[in-house]
Amino acid sequence: MTDSRIPDNHPRAKSLHTREKLINSHLEGIVAASGLIAHGRGEAFDYLLGEKTSKLALEAIDAAAAMFLTARNPVISVNGNTAALVAEEVVKLANITGSKIEVNLFYRSRARELVIKKLLEKAGAHEIFGVGKNASARIPELSSERRRVDPKGILAADVVMVPLEDGDRTEALVKIGKKVIAIDLNPLSRTAAKATITIVDNIVRSMPKLVGSVGKMKNQGVGKFREILRNFDNGKNLAESMLLIKENLSKFAAEGGTERGRAM
Amino acid sequence: MTDSRIPDNHPRAKSLHTREKLINSHLEGIVAASGLIAHGRGEAFDYLLGEKTSKLALEAIDAAAAMFLTARNPVISVNGNTAALVAEEVVKLANITGSKIEVNLFYRSRARELVIKKLLEKAGAHEIFGVGKNASARIPELSSERRRVDPKGILAADVVMVPLEDGDRTEALVKIGKKVIAIDLNPLSRTAAKATITIVDNIVRSMPKLVGSVGKMKNQGVGKFREILRNFDNGKNLAESMLLIKENLSKFAAEGGTERGRAM
Repeated sequence: MTDSRIPDNHPRAKSLHTREKLINSHLEGIVAASGLIAHGRGEAFDYLLGEKTSKLALEAIDAAAAMFLTARNPVISVNGNTAALVAEEVVKLANITGSKIEVNLFYRSRARELVIKKLLEKAGAHEIFGVGKNASARIPELSSERRRVDPKGILAADVVMVPLEDGDRTEALVKIGKKVIAIDLNPLSRTAAKATITIVDNIVRSMPKLVGSVGKMKNQGVGKFREILRNFDNGKNLAESMLLIKENLSKFAAEGGTERGRAM
Repeated sequence: MTDSRIPDNHPRAKSLHTREKLINSHLEGIVAASGLIAHGRGEAFDYLLGEKTSKLALEAIDAAAAMFLTARNPVISVNGNTAALVAEEVVKLANITGSKIEVNLFYRSRARELVIKKLLEKAGAHEIFGVGKNASARIPELSSERRRVDPKGILAADVVMVPLEDGDRTEALVKIGKKVIAIDLNPLSRTAAKATITIVDNIVRSMPKLVGSVGKMKNQGVGKFREILRNFDNGKNLAESMLLIKENLSKFAAEGGTERGRAM
C-alpha cells in the first residue's frame, strides 16, 4: 500500500517517511485505523508549525525532563502510534528516568497489546505493564477501554507521560491527581489544555530531544529541577504556540504555499 | 474498530460520525490507509475553519456550478475517500450537469476499482469510466497509478472535478489544458493553489450545496455563468480563507480551546 519511492530531495521527505512507517505499522496491527486519522491531524498541525521543534517546545521539553527527574514513580503510557514511531526512544527515556512502560490502548485487543509489547521488547524493554490481566484497575470517568490501567503502573504513578493521547484520558488522569506530560502537535486540543506540561511538537523529533535533556540535566540538584518547573507556564507556552502558527500562516500565504504545500 | 457510541450532544459529533464512516470504508477496501491520514489532515483544517461552509466557500461553489454549466464535456474524478463520503452526491451532480464519472486511484488495484465502481452504481450511477482496461491513456509527468485515465473520460474532458486530490495530479491536469475544480480543506496546499477553482470546505457539506447551486442556476443564460466566472478570483479566495483560519485561531485561543478541542 505504501510508496517507498519518496525522493530524498522532496521538500517534505521526512514527513512522508514517517507517514509510510505509520501505514506499515497499521498493516502489522500496531496502529489502529483511527490512529492513522489522528496522525493526519498531527501532520496538518506540524506543517503549520513549520515542521521543526520550536523554542517553545524546547522549553516544554526541559520542563518535562525536570518533572521526570523529580518524580517518585513515573510511567510512560504507550499507544499504537507511539510504539510505531518511537519505541526505542521510549525505552531510552524509561531507562534514563527509571520510568515504567505501560501499554494503554483506546482500541484494546489481545492481539494489539501483544504486538506492541513485542515491539517494545525488541527495542530493549525488560518489563511492560498494563498487558492482559495486569490492566485490572479502572480509572473513573472514562467509558472506553482506555480506563483499564495497571495497579502497579499508571494507578500507582505520580507522573504519567501520555504521548499522542486524547483529551478525555488526560483530564481523567489529572482528576485522580497525576501530573501529566503530553506530546501533542495541536496546541488547541483538550489534551494540550488539560496536561500539566504539553510539548507541542512532533513526537519523532521531541522524544530524542527529551532523552538528551534528561541526560544533560540529570546530575544537577533537585533545586534546579524545581526552579525550571516553577518558571514553566503551560498556558503561556500553548498561547505562544498558537501565535507561532498564526505567524507561519502569514508566511506561507506570502510564499503562495506552493513549495511548502507539496504532497499535503 | 470503530466506536459508534458517539453521543449526539458531543460538540463535534458530525466530524466523529464522518470519521467512523471513513474507517468502516477502509475496512471494506474502499479507502486506502493513506486516505485515512489524508482525512485526518482535512479534519485539522476543518476544525481551524470552524467546521462550517464559509461565505468564501459558497462563492467558490457558485463559480464551480457556473463552470460545470459552461463545460462541453465535464468529468468528476472519484477516489476512495470521495466514494466513501459522497457517492450519492457525486451521482446527483453528474446527472444534473451531464458529467461523466471516472474512478482514479493513487493506489489502484482491481479490487479497489471494483468495490468503488459497485458503490457508485449502488448510488445510482449507470456508467463508470476509468475502470480496468478502460484506463488505457496516460497523463504525462505523473509517476504513480494516478496517471492512468480513460481516453473517453478525463482525457477528453474540458472540465475535471478532482475532489480530495493531490497537488501533483491537479498540476498535471492543468498542464494538459484541463480546467480543474478541486475541493480541499487546506487553502495552503498545492492542489488549492494549482486548481482553477478551489472549494475550501468539507466535501460532506459542499457537495450537496454544489448540487443545489447548479439546480438554482441551471435555467439562467450562459452570459450569467460567464459573469460569475469572470468575477471569481481563486487566489483571492484562498488568501481570504487563510485569513479566516487566522481569525479562528485567535478566537479559539481566547476560548481556551477546551470545548472546540473535544476529541481532537
